[in-house]
Amino acid sequence: MSKVTMDIGVSVDGYAAGPNQSRENPLGENGESLHRWMFEEPEANKAVIDEIVSAGAYIMGRNMFGPDRGEWDTDWQGWWGPEPPYHAPVFVLAHREREPLVMEGGTTFTFVTDGIESALEQARAAAGERDVSIAGGVSVVQQYLRAGHVDELRLHVAPLVLGRGERLLDDVGDLRLEQLGVTSTTLVTHIRYRVL
Amino acid sequence: MSKVTMDIGVSVDGYAAGPNQSRENPLGENGESLHRWMFEEPEANKAVIDEIVSAGAYIMGRNMFGPDRGEWDTDWQGWWGPEPPYHAPVFVLAHREREPLVMEGGTTFTFVTDGIESALEQARAAAGERDVSIAGGVSVVQQYLRAGHVDELRLHVAPLVLGRGERLLDDVGDLRLEQLGVTSTTLVTHIRYRVL
Repeated sequence: MSKVTMDIGVSVDGYAAGPNQSRENPLGENGESLHRWMFEEPEANKAVIDEIVSAGAYIMGRNMFGPDRGEWDTDWQGWWGPEPPYHAPVFVLAHREREPLVMEGGTTFTFVTDGIESALEQARAAAGERDVSIAGGVSVVQQYLRAGHVDELRLHVAPLVLGRGERLLDDVGDLRLEQLGVTSTTLVTHIRYRVL
Repeated sequence: MSKVTMDIGVSVDGYAAGPNQSRENPLGENGESLHRWMFEEPEANKAVIDEIVSAGAYIMGRNMFGPDRGEWDTDWQGWWGPEPPYHAPVFVLAHREREPLVMEGGTTFTFVTDGIESALEQARAAAGERDVSIAGGVSVVQQYLRAGHVDELRLHVAPLVLGRGERLLDDVGDLRLEQLGVTSTTLVTHIRYRVL
């Protein structure tokens, strides 16, 4: 049965991005350090990385797709170059309509302007039996958690305290979780929770 | 070589206590849930629990020792009954002087009114070759982290999101950590960090 999952990298103090995010520095100051395990230990973390990119469809926020400067800059095709790592349909929550973008390698960006429920419905249909992954950013994660739509929360905790930035689990109320499994390498602790 | 350590139970969103702490409910609403692993899975967590109680001396804040109602209530001998679980010298940071309290089983409470450096010096002397553990609460943890006195931070992450309460790692700036080890049971993830 298809699940709704989210894989989010956080600091020990719960930040998913550092302060002062910008087009040049989309993860904010020190935000890159949250993901060192992906780039410096890809072999040791292969099973986790494979699972992250195994979803049947993804949902992301407008700011995760690209910097928002009012009208669409139709030259902008996302942060990821011509072949994004999703290889699946990606539904981008947006306020302005835009034609779908078909990228290389199976990724298509579809822009959804009628809310998170609609995006989820479209993503479920596109994913079929595979999972739907809420890719981020923080505000989108929080909206889906608050609405009770998330089955599994998978945190990837990097060994640093950021002290400032964008906190992942603010404003989601209190959640009861069931701990499903824990693994670790030198640069990360992976914790998987079922949301009850 | 003697280290300065801290073992702190936190929620997934980083709270070490729930909201509305009181004499009747010292850990705040839902705060007890942070420590279910200790009481419901003592065998599975035996190695961790044994280590927590193996320090040569402890430091705690005034509020962790007991509710502060102005003058000392000298009938109050802590939350833990006649034989507290420390079995070692405990240095309580306080604003008002009080005679040391000798309890059963090796615990003595010594009240230190001249600051965190003095308490650490006394605790190090009492601990000898064994570790000094900063037992809490949150404000004391933060003071020692800010002052750069902590060698090892050991977090015990319980599977719940509290949403409100007392956040452990606020106001300690940014810290670089080295992840030393991770273990888990059904009700907790134990992560041990060296503070760099």
